[in-house]
Amino acid sequence: MKSLFQYNWKIRDEWFQCLELVPITELLKERNTGVGSIFKTLFHIIDVEYSWIRALQNKTDLIFDINEYKDINSLNVLSDELRIEVKEYIDNWSSNLEFEVVTPSWIDRTYYKGEILRHIIVHEIHHTGQLSIWSKEIGMPVVSSNFIGRDLI
Amino acid sequence: MKSLFQYNWKIRDEWFQCLELVPITELLKERNTGVGSIFKTLFHIIDVEYSWIRALQNKTDLIFDINEYKDINSLNVLSDELRIEVKEYIDNWSSNLEFEVVTPSWIDRTYYKGEILRHIIVHEIHHTGQLSIWSKEIGMPVVSSNFIGRDLI
Repeated sequence: MKSLFQYNWKIRDEWFQCLELVPITELLKERNTGVGSIFKTLFHIIDVEYSWIRALQNKTDLIFDINEYKDINSLNVLSDELRIEVKEYIDNWSSNLEFEVVTPSWIDRTYYKGEILRHIIVHEIHHTGQLSIWSKEIGMPVVSSNFIGRDLI
Repeated sequence: MKSLFQYNWKIRDEWFQCLELVPITELLKERNTGVGSIFKTLFHIIDVEYSWIRALQNKTDLIFDINEYKDINSLNVLSDELRIEVKEYIDNWSSNLEFEVVTPSWIDRTYYKGEILRHIIVHEIHHTGQLSIWSKEIGMPVVSSNFIGRDLI
């Protein structure tokens, strides 16, 4: 499980690196699928991961305003900042937490912690799959989605 | 880990169900990103999962010819057939296999079994993320990528 988080962070950092070279107009362009644009997708990935990690700790959800982030570097900084708390939680994860229950503040039902952890993992992979379509369409290099060959375990 | 395979199979089956209603011309249409078309993507997901599961068992890779599959139902049948062997392997997976090494017949290097298992998982999620872009573009319902709410653990 931990290595799948490390995978997501590595892939996300590679996307940030690739997207630095892409004009901001392309990043903001509404694509009418997924959550709308490359920029919104990256913001959404960061925001959703952090919200769930807060919920797993029974902490209040913190709201971020996408309009405060003006370029890819500012999103990268946000990602790095929030990753400190996320990584601490994941580093301390143990399988005996799997069936503890959590009630996120924004949904009127409970989930197992193990269920939420897997949800966070698949959420990011799903959205970076979408990025791979758009990036190829605009002629930029696509980040490899390979887990193998990254020395993650 | 097992629940992430169950997730992928559930999502794949939901895609098959949704795509039954889509004209074959849309499924075969070359989209010039990813592996090329919706049909090729589904074939690729099935084929890659099975190849790696065979490699994990030190069995020879079996080659399937996409031209033998003419509609979405025939791909669904292939998926169900191969899933029997895949599921048996996953059901018998245990964490003490994580660091056993495997040399797939088609790559001149070794991998840990745990590394391959995670690679199979992320490979499918990545490609169904791509399907979600295309399906929305052609106006068909998008399969939810949520792990939560599916009673998978």
